[in-house]
Amino acid sequence: MRDPLRVYAAPMSDVEFYAARMQRAVRAAAGAGLAGLVVTPGPDLVWLCGYAPPAETERLTALLLVPDRKPLLVVPQLERPDAEKAPGAGAFELSGWTDGQDPYGLAAEFLAGGGRFGVSDNAWALHLLALQRTLPESRYGALTEALPMLRAVKDAYEVDRLAAAGAAADATFEAVVELPFAGRREREVAADLARLLREHGHEQVDFTIVGSGPNGANPHHEAGERVIEDGDMVVLDFGGLKDGYGSDTTRTVHVGEPSAEERKVHDLVREAQQAAFEAVRPGAACQDVDRVARQVIRRAGYGEYFIHRTGHGIGVTTHEPPYLVEGEHLPLVPGMTFSIEPGVYLPGRFGVRIEDIVVCTESGGRRLNNTERELRVVR
Amino acid sequence: MRDPLRVYAAPMSDVEFYAARMQRAVRAAAGAGLAGLVVTPGPDLVWLCGYAPPAETERLTALLLVPDRKPLLVVPQLERPDAEKAPGAGAFELSGWTDGQDPYGLAAEFLAGGGRFGVSDNAWALHLLALQRTLPESRYGALTEALPMLRAVKDAYEVDRLAAAGAAADATFEAVVELPFAGRREREVAADLARLLREHGHEQVDFTIVGSGPNGANPHHEAGERVIEDGDMVVLDFGGLKDGYGSDTTRTVHVGEPSAEERKVHDLVREAQQAAFEAVRPGAACQDVDRVARQVIRRAGYGEYFIHRTGHGIGVTTHEPPYLVEGEHLPLVPGMTFSIEPGVYLPGRFGVRIEDIVVCTESGGRRLNNTERELRVVR
Repeated sequence: MRDPLRVYAAPMSDVEFYAARMQRAVRAAAGAGLAGLVVTPGPDLVWLCGYAPPAETERLTALLLVPDRKPLLVVPQLERPDAEKAPGAGAFELSGWTDGQDPYGLAAEFLAGGGRFGVSDNAWALHLLALQRTLPESRYGALTEALPMLRAVKDAYEVDRLAAAGAAADATFEAVVELPFAGRREREVAADLARLLREHGHEQVDFTIVGSGPNGANPHHEAGERVIEDGDMVVLDFGGLKDGYGSDTTRTVHVGEPSAEERKVHDLVREAQQAAFEAVRPGAACQDVDRVARQVIRRAGYGEYFIHRTGHGIGVTTHEPPYLVEGEHLPLVPGMTFSIEPGVYLPGRFGVRIEDIVVCTESGGRRLNNTERELRVVR
Repeated sequence: MRDPLRVYAAPMSDVEFYAARMQRAVRAAAGAGLAGLVVTPGPDLVWLCGYAPPAETERLTALLLVPDRKPLLVVPQLERPDAEKAPGAGAFELSGWTDGQDPYGLAAEFLAGGGRFGVSDNAWALHLLALQRTLPESRYGALTEALPMLRAVKDAYEVDRLAAAGAAADATFEAVVELPFAGRREREVAADLARLLREHGHEQVDFTIVGSGPNGANPHHEAGERVIEDGDMVVLDFGGLKDGYGSDTTRTVHVGEPSAEERKVHDLVREAQQAAFEAVRPGAACQDVDRVARQVIRRAGYGEYFIHRTGHGIGVTTHEPPYLVEGEHLPLVPGMTFSIEPGVYLPGRFGVRIEDIVVCTESGGRRLNNTERELRVVR
């Protein structure tokens, strides 16, 4: 089984690498007063033991972590051969169950019960409800709420991987702005972005947003049939996974010479992005960074046009905690990696967004995207 | 927004079509003693209102159904424009929430609280736990357990769609067996299956299993680098979605003349599949069909080599309730559609599986796959 997480890792075996991660998770769980962790397929499972089942189904697959026991992977017997090939296999025991058996009973036996368990955010309700029924005396919390720092704080190895993904996204941007924009459809430019991300080492492309003219004013717009015209603002927001770690960057370009208003709005967003970046320091609350960006835009009279939060975390996914949003009191910690991406969206006209991935260090923020943030003119 | 569910539908508007489905769901929920339904992105949401968000994230999207009120879709404000384009929009109200707002409070206000709610099986634990916290006096059950008949029992329109998908899968099989097998890699044949499924109208390919020789003995094997040889048994199991409804069929073919033992095992699986098919009638329990297939194989001395359940439901997904498995007491009802797919897997040697989609009718089973079930010799 391919293991992108280990491509550049320090000289330890896969089993040691994942065993260390699982031990760290168990210690963190105990420190947070949790009796253990229930980890289901998705980014948590990949991060902890390198295992990604071929498909998530109603059949329970769960990695169970409790103190002083080797972790246990409960897995459908049919999928046991796949699980045994996971790079972290050897660092956990396997318990296969066959159709007709009760996998929750298996899990309950290992977890014992009592206390509070952290459960993967994306665990199916079907599984959580069955676990609640089987271990009614226990309580459960979403992993990112119960243990928000676990995947949110990256070590040096992970920051290196994110920096490499960011550099690949930057190279993608530098290449795409050399191509013609006017006269081509948004989806053609989006296809170029996807191709370039792969050429620069991404094994997975998650999104390639090309929002031209009025489409740029819908931050959720992906890429469509609209033919880009001379005079358009174009929001380019793209990313994916390179060697298992995420990239996500946005630049807004202009086809031909921008108007004074377009320049003004772009300068404003750039100023907000810079101010938010400068607000990054250990101990600042996530919401503080959001407030700084928002205040710059509000003071210029565009507050109602900044209609989303300022950023989100990134790691083995392109979208995860921490969230830079009003109400998020979580403090920034060195090693946290997240986007800073304010925007202004003028309905029916155009939008501007500027986004970098930033890592919080002891001395402040460090950008992992470094292409020019001035308004770039394309043809 | 494209709406495959409506391609061939009866002459009613999209809004009427989905309104009727949602009304049927609310009535069924009330009949089962439920206070309402909480439906999150995935097949339940598509089936009930035609809406498929661009991506499932930690931001809550949920369709809320309670008696005597127009359904409410709670949706991130950013995705509201997408939701408004859903074919069923008009049959539900929309409540957009912005980052920093509490979407669970919005949901709780509508659901009121008290009583028991059915929740989509695949709803995120993050959302369920937040709902449990916000409405602690309510209880929650997984939708397929609380309301097992809702999507499991198809109407005539849906059975027609599944029959069309089955016919397309059959045409795919007839085309693939004309191609050479010996000397080609499994993944090349798998690519042919995917191409043919698309040529025959599938918009989505879910799986293309090619298990040759010893790989066929792992029912979970997909398709790999192994070069198929003369003398191999080859399990072909493939399917996906055509016009929004699923196909899933398996045939086991042989490259060149089979041995006496290979013929014997294939005949046995065919006999088990036929016996299970003949056991389909309204009122039989799901587990009865499994038992019939298992008994045939067990009596021939191969019981330990039939290592999975006999079948699973199919509809707007290729894998859903009802499950034909020991312990499933749910009775068969006319309109239920499911696979019947016994197999025998001889470790290190070869495997045989034969699978048809079957609909339960008043007078027994009707197959939606109709290619020859005799062992087919390929080159």
